[in-house]
Amino acid sequence: MNAAYKELKQRLAEINDLGKARSVLSWDQQTMMPPRGAAVRAEQLATLDRIAHERFTSDEIGRLLDELEGFEASHPYDSDEASLVRVTRKDWEKARRVPSDLRAELTRQASLALPVWIEAREKSDFDSFLPALRTNIELRHRYIECFEPADNPYDVLLDDFERGMTTAEVAVVFERIKAEQGQLIAELRDRAADVAPPGGPFPVDRQQEFELTVIERFGFNRESWRIDPTVHPFASGAGINDIRITSRYLEDSLEGLFATMHETGHGLYEHQVAPELERSPLARGTSLGLHESQSRLWENLVGRSLPFWRFFFPRLQESFPDAVGGVELDDFYPRVNTVKPSLIRVEADEATYNMHIIMRFELEQEILSGDVALEELPEVWRDRMEQYLGIEVPDDRRGVLQDVHWAGGHIGYFPTYALGNVISAQIWERILEDIPDLYTQFEEGEFGQLRGWLGEHLHRHGRKFTPKETIERVCGGPLDPEPYLRYLRDKLGGIHGLAPVKV
Amino acid sequence: MNAAYKELKQRLAEINDLGKARSVLSWDQQTMMPPRGAAVRAEQLATLDRIAHERFTSDEIGRLLDELEGFEASHPYDSDEASLVRVTRKDWEKARRVPSDLRAELTRQASLALPVWIEAREKSDFDSFLPALRTNIELRHRYIECFEPADNPYDVLLDDFERGMTTAEVAVVFERIKAEQGQLIAELRDRAADVAPPGGPFPVDRQQEFELTVIERFGFNRESWRIDPTVHPFASGAGINDIRITSRYLEDSLEGLFATMHETGHGLYEHQVAPELERSPLARGTSLGLHESQSRLWENLVGRSLPFWRFFFPRLQESFPDAVGGVELDDFYPRVNTVKPSLIRVEADEATYNMHIIMRFELEQEILSGDVALEELPEVWRDRMEQYLGIEVPDDRRGVLQDVHWAGGHIGYFPTYALGNVISAQIWERILEDIPDLYTQFEEGEFGQLRGWLGEHLHRHGRKFTPKETIERVCGGPLDPEPYLRYLRDKLGGIHGLAPVKV
Repeated sequence: MNAAYKELKQRLAEINDLGKARSVLSWDQQTMMPPRGAAVRAEQLATLDRIAHERFTSDEIGRLLDELEGFEASHPYDSDEASLVRVTRKDWEKARRVPSDLRAELTRQASLALPVWIEAREKSDFDSFLPALRTNIELRHRYIECFEPADNPYDVLLDDFERGMTTAEVAVVFERIKAEQGQLIAELRDRAADVAPPGGPFPVDRQQEFELTVIERFGFNRESWRIDPTVHPFASGAGINDIRITSRYLEDSLEGLFATMHETGHGLYEHQVAPELERSPLARGTSLGLHESQSRLWENLVGRSLPFWRFFFPRLQESFPDAVGGVELDDFYPRVNTVKPSLIRVEADEATYNMHIIMRFELEQEILSGDVALEELPEVWRDRMEQYLGIEVPDDRRGVLQDVHWAGGHIGYFPTYALGNVISAQIWERILEDIPDLYTQFEEGEFGQLRGWLGEHLHRHGRKFTPKETIERVCGGPLDPEPYLRYLRDKLGGIHGLAPVKV
Repeated sequence: MNAAYKELKQRLAEINDLGKARSVLSWDQQTMMPPRGAAVRAEQLATLDRIAHERFTSDEIGRLLDELEGFEASHPYDSDEASLVRVTRKDWEKARRVPSDLRAELTRQASLALPVWIEAREKSDFDSFLPALRTNIELRHRYIECFEPADNPYDVLLDDFERGMTTAEVAVVFERIKAEQGQLIAELRDRAADVAPPGGPFPVDRQQEFELTVIERFGFNRESWRIDPTVHPFASGAGINDIRITSRYLEDSLEGLFATMHETGHGLYEHQVAPELERSPLARGTSLGLHESQSRLWENLVGRSLPFWRFFFPRLQESFPDAVGGVELDDFYPRVNTVKPSLIRVEADEATYNMHIIMRFELEQEILSGDVALEELPEVWRDRMEQYLGIEVPDDRRGVLQDVHWAGGHIGYFPTYALGNVISAQIWERILEDIPDLYTQFEEGEFGQLRGWLGEHLHRHGRKFTPKETIERVCGGPLDPEPYLRYLRDKLGGIHGLAPVKV
């Protein structure tokens, strides 16, 4: 093997080890750590970050990348070798542009803002959060200045989460979504108003037993995975064969089951990366949007489908006779597919979810451009919620303060959620072409072929291709909102009694 | 603050962060990790080790230590400042003597030997373990050669676990123990033969509830501690307020309770280190011997004492009515203080435990000197067990292959267990002088004053003083086996009907 390539791989493997150590410490922090361990844990995480960043942005990595230009050119574009060099070069060039001091300050201020936001949200007191938010936004401006001027400064931030995707490209897709989903919501507003989610009782221990029978059929196994309870569900892990998912449970709701299916989707993407990529920067999902396409696919396109419930509903009835023992599947199925504009993004149904995202996407751009002043945010938020979803925001806790992202400095992150929805349906149409009896398989509790398809077409490549390249390879065309819009109208319109649309 | 001191502290804090990250990953490996995560976890641990070692043995640390000679001299010996510089210099000088390649090889070969040993033990097949053991011993010889010649090559290895303690000093103490404990075992052999440990049933979930009521009185609390089940109990942690202990449970035995009290003793030592020492190399127990003194103190001097059981036995009866509901305390107490020579070190009672250790201490020296050839070990083991404990070894699984230490390359570690026993009793005599009503407090379920005494006299100092200095400071004299020997004869002789000895 080429000596420079070998050395690069070895250096990247060590940096990857530090990153995975960080993942374990962060997972532990949110699931296992005794509360008073928090202060010293923050230092440990910061140290791992700093050392990994130092080692990655070193001149030696740059020298190796220079040396490997010919090596890269002599390998096929989609080879592991060329991909590792190509992706690392792009990562390195981005990381080098950000001075260590600014990098540290971005992390530090985000850490400091977190408890401020938690208290502000609790008290529904936006003013107390405003200074921390102002600092985070100012730092984002300094961060943007590290890069070549873009068409839109928001491009720089978006690129961190969805490499190569521009604000303009996303805006075109979101405009179409806004029009069509707005229309669908309006059409369903009265028809779906009385359909409520199943209300329990769903004793938590039995939920945990039940969900295992579901996700074990998806691909979860005790040899390579764990699942634990937490406050905010997430997926994480220390390697291809060490996947950690988390969920949370309420006695009067099945939301925990859907959260678990969602996180299983994330976990499968990481678990099915090709083993040859382990310990390299390619050994994870290629972007947040693609990742979210996987979680939403398993949560919604699988987990809220009728064929899925044809198999699992009798089992659900056995597990929760008091809650659903006397219910018919025809009455249950609409109740896991409700449509009702609501205040909180993470609780939103499929029809309204993207509207929450688009509102944030637009607001973030207006914040960056200065069109919206930070102190006006609560009011603007109320106006937009009225405009986009027709509902009144009673307080900032359930309004502008609801999400952690701005406290964490993650401006440009939100659009990836809606991109995930869009991509999930694009992929789904391809799967249905390749596996015509997919829904029959679901009715028999069989999900292995679906998992295999995703592994083969998407997961195994890890981060070798950009989001755009990946969409093109998997779906045979560019980002396209129409499949998702068709899916929503077909399913939700069908359930809640709209006449089918001629296409 | 002195700039060089500040810089040294900062560098050591980062190195400490890496070490604690390693602790969390290692704890996770033994309690939480899915089995197939093992391969990549080994790489992550090795990377953290390597980076920490590189950073610690750097020239910059040496330069700072040189610069700080005057600073150190201008501070009192027992100040945090002088202690940090002094202890770090000694650590640095030791670490620098070992080439990185040898350091890596020591770690690598120990990792490789571990699965070999596991399989060899399972099959009771010493020959299959012999090559790995040979490699480990040869590497130890190379390691010893890195240092100035000592009176005894074993001194170099012992120093890693018990800094400043020599083989000759330990041998004097062990000779005395061997004679007196050998005598005690002989005297008790017939009298204690029929007293068996309590046999249950002790349902595991109720054991876990019961032990919490015990260790919460010792100082365990959910804010800063965790306890989890594992295969081989150990104590670990990520900081002064993030202490992790583990235990294991059998339905027909109370050994899990004693293991838990033992690990709580280790945990208290780490938990009560002065907060000012956090993130420094001083923020842990000073040696394995001192650490073991704390675990054995809580397990045996507290947990196998009559006053302890006067308080807890009625509670034990409530929790396990089937096992001990009809038993009198007078019949129960001897059963947690049995004396019966047995094959396995970790299951040995207080009277016989040290004999297992002394045998290993002697054997390790004979291995190093070449007086015992490795291939003779199984036979020599059988002879010594016959000679020291009068029992026959039926197979190597329960003989020479029982312990993990030689597979892990930890030659020189065993004596610290017996030193811990000895020191625990030395400390105990001082405590009884300072807290005359200690046993009355135990009878009332009160252990806070004992915990406070240990924190004040021992724990808060962390690693500031060497083992010898620490023993001198805490006990007012040098290492001395007599208190432990008195304690054993008084307690076990009393329980099993020997006439009291005039002292």
